[in-house]
Parts: sequence; C-alpha cells; structure tokens
Amino acid sequence: MLIGKTMIFESKPAILSFASVAGKKESEGPFGKYFDICGHDSFFGENSFEKAESKLQKLAVEYALKKATLNFGDVDCIFAGDLLNQCIGSSFGLRDFGIPICGLYGACSTMALSIINACVQIEAGLARRTVSVTSSHFCSAERQYRFPLEYGSQRPPTAQWTATASGAVVLTNEQQKAYIDKATIGKICDLGVKDAGNMGAAMAPAAADTIRRFFVDTRTRPQDYSAIFTGDLGYVGSTLLYELLDEDGINIRENHNDCGMMIFDREGQDVHAGGSGCGCSASILTGFILKEIENGHLPNVLFCATGALLSPTSTQQGDTIPCVAHLINIRKND
Amino acid sequence: MLIGKTMIFESKPAILSFASVAGKKESEGPFGKYFDICGHDSFFGENSFEKAESKLQKLAVEYALKKATLNFGDVDCIFAGDLLNQCIGSSFGLRDFGIPICGLYGACSTMALSIINACVQIEAGLARRTVSVTSSHFCSAERQYRFPLEYGSQRPPTAQWTATASGAVVLTNEQQKAYIDKATIGKICDLGVKDAGNMGAAMAPAAADTIRRFFVDTRTRPQDYSAIFTGDLGYVGSTLLYELLDEDGINIRENHNDCGMMIFDREGQDVHAGGSGCGCSASILTGFILKEIENGHLPNVLFCATGALLSPTSTQQGDTIPCVAHLINIRKND
Repeated sequence: MLIGKTMIFESKPAILSFASVAGKKESEGPFGKYFDICGHDSFFGENSFEKAESKLQKLAVEYALKKATLNFGDVDCIFAGDLLNQCIGSSFGLRDFGIPICGLYGACSTMALSIINACVQIEAGLARRTVSVTSSHFCSAERQYRFPLEYGSQRPPTAQWTATASGAVVLTNEQQKAYIDKATIGKICDLGVKDAGNMGAAMAPAAADTIRRFFVDTRTRPQDYSAIFTGDLGYVGSTLLYELLDEDGINIRENHNDCGMMIFDREGQDVHAGGSGCGCSASILTGFILKEIENGHLPNVLFCATGALLSPTSTQQGDTIPCVAHLINIRKND
Repeated sequence: MLIGKTMIFESKPAILSFASVAGKKESEGPFGKYFDICGHDSFFGENSFEKAESKLQKLAVEYALKKATLNFGDVDCIFAGDLLNQCIGSSFGLRDFGIPICGLYGACSTMALSIINACVQIEAGLARRTVSVTSSHFCSAERQYRFPLEYGSQRPPTAQWTATASGAVVLTNEQQKAYIDKATIGKICDLGVKDAGNMGAAMAPAAADTIRRFFVDTRTRPQDYSAIFTGDLGYVGSTLLYELLDEDGINIRENHNDCGMMIFDREGQDVHAGGSGCGCSASILTGFILKEIENGHLPNVLFCATGALLSPTSTQQGDTIPCVAHLINIRKND
C-alpha cells in the first residue's frame, strides 16, 4: 500500500539473517566487537584494494547465508551496489554465486535502497528469499574519489573517512523476529553544495526531505520510534539535519544517532567529521542495529541511509552535489 | 507469481507512453526516422559530453511524460542508471524532477533492469505510475572506458560503437495497449573473456543463460514469440549467442534481431561489430519495438538487454568481464 509516497509492506518482509564484515580500523572502533568478520589488513587476502572490496561483499553474503543455512540456489534475487566505478565491488564479489542480480546505485544510501527493492519484490510475491548487500573500502575510495594514498594528501576537518566494511541482509516472506514495515524512497536534493570534502552538508537536505516526508505520510513523530539512525551524515551533516528539521518543527535530537558518528572514535581514530561509505551504515545496521531490534532494546527503528551522487568528473566540471536518502522502518515482531 | 526464477506479472504493468532521444549519427542510421528527438551535435546545448548525456535522459523523461500528459508529481518512482562513473548521467539528468528515484546499475542491460524493477513495484501495489530511463553517449563513454577522442585511437573489428541515445518508458497500473507479461532477472556470467574490445563475446553467454532459463521456466519456444530482441551483442556476440543456444537445441535465428545490429548501418557508418551502450537498446525499444508491439506487427516480444559489468580498473588489474542479461516479455493487449 502506498500512502503519499511512503510504502507500507503488508506482507511484512522479514529479516532472516544478516552479517557484517569490517576492516582493521573499523574493528578497533566503538562497535568493533559487534562485527562478524574482521580483517587484519586492507587486502583481505587479495592483491588490490578493489578486489579486497569485492571480497568484503562475498564474505558478507556467504556468512549471512550460512547463518540462515541457505544455499545460493535458495535465493531468488540479490540486490547489490557500491561506490566503485561501474559497481565492480558488487559484480566481481558476487559473480560466482549464480543468483539473479539486480545492480543498484545509491552511493552511501545503497544499504537502504537494496533492502527497499528486496522488500518490494517480496511484497509482490515475486521473491521468497532475497539478499541485500553493499560495501565500501577506504583505500579504493580514496584513490578513486580523491588521491592515491601514497600522495599523503591532507583531509579537511569536514571530510569523512570511508569505512572499509560490508553488510548483507537476507530477507524472507516468512515471519521472523523482525520485519520491514515501511519505506520511503528518496528524491534527489541539491542545494548547491560544491565542496566534495563536505559530504555531510551536501547530504543533510536529502535526509531532511525523506524523514520529513515519512513523518507526514505516516502521521507519526520522532518520539514514536525507539531510535532514528541516519548514515552517513557524520558530525557536520547531523548538526545541519537537526537545523533543517527544526524548520518544520521536527526534533529528532533525543533519539537520533548517525552511523558515521558511531563507527569510529572521533578523537582517538582521527576521522575528522566521522565515517562514510556504503559499508559504514551497512555494517552498523548488520552489526549492531538489527541485533538491538531483535533483542527488543530498539523495537521500532528508522534507518535512513544517505548518498552523495557526485563523481570526480562532475566535481571537476564545477557541478554541485546531488544527494539522496532512502528510509526504512524496521520493527520487532510482537 | 514466480515460476522457477521467472516473474509473471499478474497485474499486467502497462506501457502508458515512451520517448526516444538520439544523437546525430544515430538519427542518420536505419532507425533514425523513429526517434522522437534528434540532436544535431554531440552536446545537446551543454558544455561537456557528460552534461550532454544527462540532458539526453532529461529530454527523454520530459517528452515521455508530456505524451502521457503527466506531471512529475504523478510519478511514484523513477528507475534510472547509466554507464558513467557513479551514474551521473541519471543523477544529474533527473535531479530537478523531484520524483523518488531508484538508482540502478546494469551497464547496457539497464533498460530491461529498470523496466523490471518498475513492474515489480507496480505488481506490489506500491506504485501507480513509474518511469524507467537510461542513456549512453559515445564521447563520454570513449574517454571514460577507452581513450579520449583526441587520441584518435584505432578500434578493433570486434569493437562496438557506443550509441548516443536515451529511452524512457512510463508504466502504469491501468490497462493500455501493451503490457509487461513476464521477466527474468539475469545471473552474472563470466566465461573468462578478458578483451574489453570484444564485449559481444563476453556478453553472449549471459544472454544465452537468461534466454534459456526463460524458455525453461515458461515452457515456451522461440517460435512462440513474434520477435526476440537482444541488446547489444552486435554481430560478433549474436553469432556466438546462436551457437551457445544451439547446444540446448534452441534456435532463435528465425525471429532474432539485436539492437546493436539495428541502430547503425554496419557498412555505411563504420561501426565495426555494431552499436552498444545503455542508450542503444533503450532507444531502439522506445523508438521502434514498442510501436511495433502497439500497432500489432509484433504482438508478443522478448527484449533481452545485455550488460558487461567491467570497469577500466578491473581490466587494468587483468580481470575478466562479468556480464548479465535481463529479459522482459512485452505483449499487446488483446
């Protein structure tokens, strides 16, 4: 059912299993103990950063399926995307699985986007079990978006640190501990921010737009939810999000947290404005949030993943940064 | 309903309108007269090839909506993707529309992928009207995937020519002249082809796999369809597709054509193995095929769009080319 532009899933697409993979730095952060698989270097046994990123997705999907005791053939469709040019993190990471694949591009919003599309397919009765997965890798992202690490370039205080991480979620049409109740697909918002070193500022308006539309469509308020997680606005973007929502009388400060603020220790890990990358919110969702939903600590959660849809080319051509934010409402079953 | 891994759309998501945009070379080709909007140069009024590609998508969507007398607000979701790094053709082309957007990545298979996802959302009752759109641009693709045009590099005989084109399809949950009846989402196939100058050979196994699975799932044969269009295997890939399907006793030669073979005059336009690019099959679909379905010349069509999921980085790292093919069955209403 569609209310406004918010989707209500009547079939309650349910969370069957999930898995998280994290790099060394991420596993040393505040949520390190929650991740299923932790790497000891940047390579995960591969010989390039890009291949390492593919490995992250491969490991996450394999582990999530293992937890659910599923084979590849049991999955009707896998929804995947990442930040690398032509999404090679996904295509190469998942190519051996033989699962029908729907490639997505939502930049750092991909975890929410891939879950939404999976839910829609289950709701339509066109899939019984699906996998949603995404990843990011600090080293592959730095040399693609900014500079090769060897340059040792300085990062501005507003910059965020791309997480080396992945998360995979297996959804099913059969009842489980938790399910996706609603979703709002984001519109592209571009308020003219041009600074590719300040993604939080660029993305905050997209998050505000989606969250605002969700509350209007569902006639609910922030206090109706156990927690509201955005990913990955970081410290700069989260502050701006509060201010933007204030204009509409919406105050999420009480129960909001941001995956980009959670994944690293801001002071101890030298990450400036926080974490980012598709894998940041994906790993926090699959490492921490879903467990908290299932164990009843956070029975009713909003997860709003944000993405900056720029490319190095668009920045070089002087263009601004269009952004998007996709939101899902995840609930514990009564 | 899911039969095997093939989706049967019981709600008959219908084609409300569609539009095609083509570049100068494409409009001089055999199907030039069918395209709605034709450009006179490579820029479409913009100052870079990438911005020109965004403009292609913008024009295609605007024209398709105009034909259907719809406003942006009437559309529940737009499904879009392209070949450019971070899919900036879509993000920048569609950013002003204010329509919820689902970004996709399927390389040259994107037109089928975006229609499938739109159909699934309509089937789930989670959208009333959707837009599916994609694009490609010869000049932006050449400098991103291969060499800047200024280098004047020579192309091998197996190379395909990226079409400068776009196509947009508006789908609706209300009955129209034609509808999407079935769809098969592709699996990644990688038989080890490494030559990025021979995409047809790399993609043929993916097309064969999807077409084979569709026939098995639906218990139908090639002769049950008015026509089978692949896009964009070109001359090399189409020949290989015939041979691969021969192994399973499937002969599509009688009613097959390939968008990459159709869009250009092979001899007169110096395109070697044919056309390619997301916009190639998108413009042939929206320029020619859908009209032939609606007017009853081709009442029951298979459209199988193929994509090569490589990136320049994966090729430089010596990797092979994973490919995918997504298939839809489009039918005229009785």
